Amino acid sequence: MNSEYYFEKEKKYHLGVYRRSPVVFVSGEGPYLFDLEGEKYLDFLAGIAVNVLGYSFPPLVKAIQEEAAKLLHTSNLFYTLPQIELAERLIKISGLSKAFFVNSGAEANEVAMKVARFYGRRKHKKRFKFISFERSFHGRTLLTLAATGQKKFHQDLEPLPLGIAYAKLNDLQSVLEILDDEVCAIIVEPVQGEGGVYPSSKEFLQGLRELCDREDILLIFDEVQCGMGRTGSFFAFQHFGVKPDLVTLAKGLGGGLPIGCCLLDEKVLPFLHPGDQGSTFGGNPVCARSACVVCDEVSKESFLKKVGEKGDYLKKELEGLQKKYPGLIKEVRGVGLMWGIEIPGRAKEAAQKLFESKVLVNACNDDVVRLLPPLIIEEEHIDLVVNALDKILATW
Amino acid sequence: MNSEYYFEKEKKYHLGVYRRSPVVFVSGEGPYLFDLEGEKYLDFLAGIAVNVLGYSFPPLVKAIQEEAAKLLHTSNLFYTLPQIELAERLIKISGLSKAFFVNSGAEANEVAMKVARFYGRRKHKKRFKFISFERSFHGRTLLTLAATGQKKFHQDLEPLPLGIAYAKLNDLQSVLEILDDEVCAIIVEPVQGEGGVYPSSKEFLQGLRELCDREDILLIFDEVQCGMGRTGSFFAFQHFGVKPDLVTLAKGLGGGLPIGCCLLDEKVLPFLHPGDQGSTFGGNPVCARSACVVCDEVSKESFLKKVGEKGDYLKKELEGLQKKYPGLIKEVRGVGLMWGIEIPGRAKEAAQKLFESKVLVNACNDDVVRLLPPLIIEEEHIDLVVNALDKILATW
Repeated sequence: MNSEYYFEKEKKYHLGVYRRSPVVFVSGEGPYLFDLEGEKYLDFLAGIAVNVLGYSFPPLVKAIQEEAAKLLHTSNLFYTLPQIELAERLIKISGLSKAFFVNSGAEANEVAMKVARFYGRRKHKKRFKFISFERSFHGRTLLTLAATGQKKFHQDLEPLPLGIAYAKLNDLQSVLEILDDEVCAIIVEPVQGEGGVYPSSKEFLQGLRELCDREDILLIFDEVQCGMGRTGSFFAFQHFGVKPDLVTLAKGLGGGLPIGCCLLDEKVLPFLHPGDQGSTFGGNPVCARSACVVCDEVSKESFLKKVGEKGDYLKKELEGLQKKYPGLIKEVRGVGLMWGIEIPGRAKEAAQKLFESKVLVNACNDDVVRLLPPLIIEEEHIDLVVNALDKILATW
Repeated sequence: MNSEYYFEKEKKYHLGVYRRSPVVFVSGEGPYLFDLEGEKYLDFLAGIAVNVLGYSFPPLVKAIQEEAAKLLHTSNLFYTLPQIELAERLIKISGLSKAFFVNSGAEANEVAMKVARFYGRRKHKKRFKFISFERSFHGRTLLTLAATGQKKFHQDLEPLPLGIAYAKLNDLQSVLEILDDEVCAIIVEPVQGEGGVYPSSKEFLQGLRELCDREDILLIFDEVQCGMGRTGSFFAFQHFGVKPDLVTLAKGLGGGLPIGCCLLDEKVLPFLHPGDQGSTFGGNPVCARSACVVCDEVSKESFLKKVGEKGDYLKKELEGLQKKYPGLIKEVRGVGLMWGIEIPGRAKEAAQKLFESKVLVNACNDDVVRLLPPLIIEEEHIDLVVNALDKILATW
């Protein structure tokens, strides 16, 4: 059976909401994916920041295989070792107080927002509102869609959950303008991902931290996309030097398997009680064991240092490309190994041409090509991608 | 390191929202779990209806191990085989039209409710409300908590998403009383699980179907707990002979790994467009491959027939126990291998005593002990559990 056979089958049985590239992937190795016909693709998207250790990383495969033979799942009515070991790792790395596990980034943000509302209602009675940001993306549940500062995601789903207003990233004044005494939390991606790769400034995040401290508002960092080593620090908040009260992780956390997490500061604990949160699958042994391996690799100082160096190299190369094609590339933005290349009106075309050159990236929208490579790439892979893009732009 | 060591570690690093039984499980075999000290427990809870094939089912372990070595994840921007093959299986078994994959039951219900709202807004403009039922449980996201007809889950999270009202299960008149021309969907568990194991009547579900057909309202069956063979049919809707427009699955679907699904009738398709739904991990190769194995086993006629027979046997045994202890057991309720034993005021005590006898069940609340065994149990296991409960009740 060839790929066409499966495209047809997918069309027949799967809901047609994805705009998929026409390729069936069956295996991977390092930063490369292989399709059904044996063609090789260099992956600079990593399953949308998921496969941080690339494909078929031996210790990860081994851990999953071993745990799958022992125990897939028992529910959170009992204790399991990988979940406890993962919580320990994340708390030690983050310096936060407690971990809670779910299955996705949307679920992690739901937990953080519910925690913030418990805090707002139980400590301050009347506080229930959230401040989010324009261009943000926080997930696909109704609450996290409401927190997503992009109107296109809200259409035909009204009424959305109440109490969410949007400020402008890197504009503290815009936050102050919509702040009132009913706000319980501010939720922000330290580096906006889906919205087009927009990094926050350190000063802005510091300003939010000071504001939140002054008003006893919780500061939530959504690190679903920018966490797990992507900035060159394990947590993006470490890169920016600003500690949130709640931080959410997913995507890269399991190295490919579905797991999400919310980490919590000590200050919220007195306002949370047994039964306030729950998850059937969250922190199951296989996904948690997989995440332990990812944490062990990504938290190594040498690993993070290399991510930073490769990020610097990628930055330099992309800036070089921008200088070469100032009429095509409006801006390059990013941190570590998370970059957006703004090619106004032609981002989708550029992504498509790269796909035809067997390089995988994606277009966040009509204007921005996004690079989220596995963190294990080398400079040679960066050269391959930059050269492929160079060749495409040379013809425009 | 013994269990005590891990209880302490969990307390130190994990958010204290679970009331866990004091046992660390490390492996399983068939319907048995083994703890860190090597003690053996007979599991009549199956990770809350998740481990439908019991523990360490060889074809399931093998499938996960093989897929883990090939491809963990690539995102839904591309095609992967296990997801397509799983969609094909579920559509063929269900007779519905399309499948969409997520990571949990809450996410599956979010999808169904969002689809219903798109349908209500895009076809009927002003329709956005949902009718749900008292005692229901639909998940832990804010929207699915709002759809959950139990006040204790709403406290301190207000304002909840608007437009959800609760009728009484098996009381069609109560539905008619809250019905208005802004309702887009009715969401119901064919067998309520968390609320205390309350089966719907066939007549009631038929009445809902007729009402929904007449008013062009969508009928959503939440089969997160009661689907995947538990009633003796693959889908609970097949057991009741009433076909919904949307059906959600999770728990048992992956046999232990996190995966959820929403299946959709053809009638909703014209009102859904690319971009309307999305999931990073949903339908990833490892979880989907695992779910394919579960579907292949559970859909076998011989397998489902045996579930029905074992269910009949369990029913007979529980009814015998009720006759023996009419002052302690108020009612036994259930379908297939999903049973509630109403022991007013002493359900938690009974569950605790069973735990001490190395039998795992859970108490939904103060009054109801719930049995959700792996579907692969034999009569001898039923005898063990019924005898253990008999011994406990004999002393009361």
